[in-house]
Amino acid sequence: MTKNRYSEEEIGAVYRVIRERRDIRHFVPGSLPSGLIERLVDAAHQAPSVGLMQPWRFIRITDAALRGRIHAHVEAERHATAAALPSRNDEFMKVKVEGIRDCSELLVAALMNGREPHIFGRHTLPEMDLCSLACAIQNMWLAARAEGLGLGWVSFFDPEVLAKMLNMPDGAKPLGILCLGPVASFDSQPLLEKIGWGKRLPRSEILFENRWPADARPTQPMY
Amino acid sequence: MTKNRYSEEEIGAVYRVIRERRDIRHFVPGSLPSGLIERLVDAAHQAPSVGLMQPWRFIRITDAALRGRIHAHVEAERHATAAALPSRNDEFMKVKVEGIRDCSELLVAALMNGREPHIFGRHTLPEMDLCSLACAIQNMWLAARAEGLGLGWVSFFDPEVLAKMLNMPDGAKPLGILCLGPVASFDSQPLLEKIGWGKRLPRSEILFENRWPADARPTQPMY
Repeated sequence: MTKNRYSEEEIGAVYRVIRERRDIRHFVPGSLPSGLIERLVDAAHQAPSVGLMQPWRFIRITDAALRGRIHAHVEAERHATAAALPSRNDEFMKVKVEGIRDCSELLVAALMNGREPHIFGRHTLPEMDLCSLACAIQNMWLAARAEGLGLGWVSFFDPEVLAKMLNMPDGAKPLGILCLGPVASFDSQPLLEKIGWGKRLPRSEILFENRWPADARPTQPMY
Repeated sequence: MTKNRYSEEEIGAVYRVIRERRDIRHFVPGSLPSGLIERLVDAAHQAPSVGLMQPWRFIRITDAALRGRIHAHVEAERHATAAALPSRNDEFMKVKVEGIRDCSELLVAALMNGREPHIFGRHTLPEMDLCSLACAIQNMWLAARAEGLGLGWVSFFDPEVLAKMLNMPDGAKPLGILCLGPVASFDSQPLLEKIGWGKRLPRSEILFENRWPADARPTQPMY
């Protein structure tokens, strides 16, 4: 079992970054060292993709007016989500769900257009392209954490509106607004757990053997 | 920029595991040390999830007859995918696309049932639950690589057929068959790149600024 295994220190670093990665909504001023954005995008680009499709695209937002328009749209969508919640609406509105104005760097992560001909590994599961993009974002997230940077994945937006704002061709689809930058500190718990919005499930509720247990219950939303 | 930053050794380990993770289809005999499956599932369970939804479920397959049925189904689906390819069908059939019979441990990764009430972060993007599951699998993949274990994410199956085989309730959906176990070695390149099925895109084709370039082309499938 020692063949191909990393050193204990390296293994420790991998589990540490997995454990300490947080979805960040609060940023402090500061800029990224030269070349770091590219290093993080390269980490994302090393993700697995179905049939080596590499469906991920990242748009770096450097235009302040464009950032402002994205922020205004997300703010409107945040209110729409609050209105759609059956309860805890006021509490939801108090939770900061984005850091678009405050983060050092803003990236939009999207699926490319022209995905239909890619059927290797997608014959029965066309949504595998989305899984590839999510793996790429998770790579970037972990690398950013190790570099001491926070990242938040914001999904409060209408994909069609954002696609138009960024001149995306038909078939391309934005899946995340990524807020990236220095933070004051990293919490030991996820924000939604810390504020009592939800709690971590015990392992027994997510790991089964050979069959789905008849008495298994889905995670209940806390509203 | 040094605040919250890991040591150079730890940062190096994080980039190393991102770079050296492979989608593995060839396994060697061997079993996993006691407790390792649980450690890898815990790594997956530390992934981000939209609204702390934790939609991921893992089914460990320990029943040899059940593993055989899963393998037979994937083999049939592999032929169906080959038949659907416009060309390179024979070449595709020579590429090993799964390691279901040979891997030490087989897990099925699925989305839970009862996802509809979860609208935090999913009001306009219901597929965010799938992104959460993919991030969980990527965590497991990276942790497994550091532990010296290979993992392959197989998507050649009909989700409805597999759901029935595993007694999943309506609304639950399998997204991956995960093959896990010791391997002889890890390739320096992804398998599909090594055999010339596809190639890595340059960074300039996946990173844009402020808008989607009018002349950007989607990745072309190599068949």
